[in-house]
Amino acid sequence: MAVYTEVTDDALADFLSGYDIGTMVAFRGIAEGVENSNFSLRTTAGDFILTLYEKRVDPDDLPWFLGLMEHLALHGLVCPQPVHGRDGLALRQLCGKHAAITTFLPGVWPRRVRQSHCAPVGTALAKLHLAGADYAPARKNALGPQAWQPLLDRCRGRADEIQDGLAQELDRSLDAILSGWPAGLPVGHIHADMFPDNVFFLDEKLSGVIDFYFAATDLLAYDIAICLNAWCFEPDFSFNVTKSRALLASYQSVRPLSQDEQDALPVLCQGAAIRFLLTRVFDWLNTPSGAMVTRKDPMEYLRRLRFHMSATDGRAYGL
Amino acid sequence: MAVYTEVTDDALADFLSGYDIGTMVAFRGIAEGVENSNFSLRTTAGDFILTLYEKRVDPDDLPWFLGLMEHLALHGLVCPQPVHGRDGLALRQLCGKHAAITTFLPGVWPRRVRQSHCAPVGTALAKLHLAGADYAPARKNALGPQAWQPLLDRCRGRADEIQDGLAQELDRSLDAILSGWPAGLPVGHIHADMFPDNVFFLDEKLSGVIDFYFAATDLLAYDIAICLNAWCFEPDFSFNVTKSRALLASYQSVRPLSQDEQDALPVLCQGAAIRFLLTRVFDWLNTPSGAMVTRKDPMEYLRRLRFHMSATDGRAYGL
Repeated sequence: MAVYTEVTDDALADFLSGYDIGTMVAFRGIAEGVENSNFSLRTTAGDFILTLYEKRVDPDDLPWFLGLMEHLALHGLVCPQPVHGRDGLALRQLCGKHAAITTFLPGVWPRRVRQSHCAPVGTALAKLHLAGADYAPARKNALGPQAWQPLLDRCRGRADEIQDGLAQELDRSLDAILSGWPAGLPVGHIHADMFPDNVFFLDEKLSGVIDFYFAATDLLAYDIAICLNAWCFEPDFSFNVTKSRALLASYQSVRPLSQDEQDALPVLCQGAAIRFLLTRVFDWLNTPSGAMVTRKDPMEYLRRLRFHMSATDGRAYGL
Repeated sequence: MAVYTEVTDDALADFLSGYDIGTMVAFRGIAEGVENSNFSLRTTAGDFILTLYEKRVDPDDLPWFLGLMEHLALHGLVCPQPVHGRDGLALRQLCGKHAAITTFLPGVWPRRVRQSHCAPVGTALAKLHLAGADYAPARKNALGPQAWQPLLDRCRGRADEIQDGLAQELDRSLDAILSGWPAGLPVGHIHADMFPDNVFFLDEKLSGVIDFYFAATDLLAYDIAICLNAWCFEPDFSFNVTKSRALLASYQSVRPLSQDEQDALPVLCQGAAIRFLLTRVFDWLNTPSGAMVTRKDPMEYLRRLRFHMSATDGRAYGL
């Protein structure tokens, strides 16, 4: 649930006067997204999304994110496009926050993942990886493997408040993951957060990908591992290998995986699971009561992690 | 911030098949409104709002609310219109909740009230009162004067947790208000919640009124008192008599107030202030920590109440 900043009508009208997109027709806060404040904005020229970047996003990264979205769209991926103001700038200020207007993307994100969603997700992810190939600047993944040990260090003392023995299990798993982390796999720009609520569908077809604010430069196959975690577990946390096979096969139809990438899939999936597990544990322990954000249950990712820790090779994922 | 119920895409597609409004194009939760779950819904036929009625609304009242909205629109007030399904029904079920689709109303609610907003609000309120005149059924105001003493009884024991002496001040004020409450004033259907976030403006003109889920049958002038509380105080809680005069004059240009109504304005405003004060005190003391709803500061209404307690006649409001 995310509207952290109240935008007055005067401030908004003033802000819009910097653009050539007509005058305001409607303006409503959007309940989705937890990192930024998002508003649905209709003007006489059409529909847009207004985003105010809140504290979790580093302002220095914003031009990279917006530039990536433009680059990906130029290379065939459907995603929101930053709208430039009369002065040519897409990144502006509103109510003391960094702000940008992007185009509105039709579609609905799947509240319940069906098998038919998984192949399009694989295709879109592979296209995203290829389309990003010649976007020159790199962005370090702030939540990549080098971040996990420090994150665990900040949670260890209180992790057992969530579940008895959690600290020890995290220590043991993370040691194994980091010592087995692959070197030499293909690197590129990854979405890093391609969860169902960031992928829109329309008439059963994938209509676009949103929310590039975790995107970074990292192992491409790690992005697949994030998707396997996000799309292929059932509500009871059993792993649906049919979904996984569909996702991987369609990914490979666009960008085939090397043998090394295939072999690394278990540890990459373990890493993806522990990355979300650690941030959820951290948020769980550090979200003030009364906050307007729903805390996500970290244990969902412990269940996923345990599955991946038991996987020995790519066959567990339908390869 | 209000999306309490997650609607799956399957359930929504099934729900939409009961209507003649095309197929889904976009679907986003709306961050505004605290009583119900609201979604912005775009179909191939246009834009709509989907509302799921949550626990605070009595399902037996829903046909009355939806009927009132249709009646008011037929008589010239711009407000959302319930969309009827193929079977003729506007009130349906979705995800185990009562649900309705209404038309989308263009406009933006004023985050900062300017004087220019107040005359249109007065006009719209008077039109609403006249338009409702021949809507036959009555609905008891569940938050009218008869509800205030029981509400205070449920808060008294803990009211001083919010501010020292609050319980005593509430007791004394409520005694005075109830003993001075007017009899014999004109009765009709009132909106009862015409706050800035329920009134849309477009190009400086009032474009519509939303959220009729507190509407009831009660003293018409009491509805004006609610608006004076909602629209005419400055952020520092000083009363802006210029705004009040504008609101009252434009109201009277459509429906002149009787002398009795004018004389009752102070006590009606006191009643309106204590009604919102009491529900906020109750919510403050009873909102679980971690709830997704922002608790509204009750003290804002104590400040308003004190102003009205000092008013002796209509001149305090610019009459």
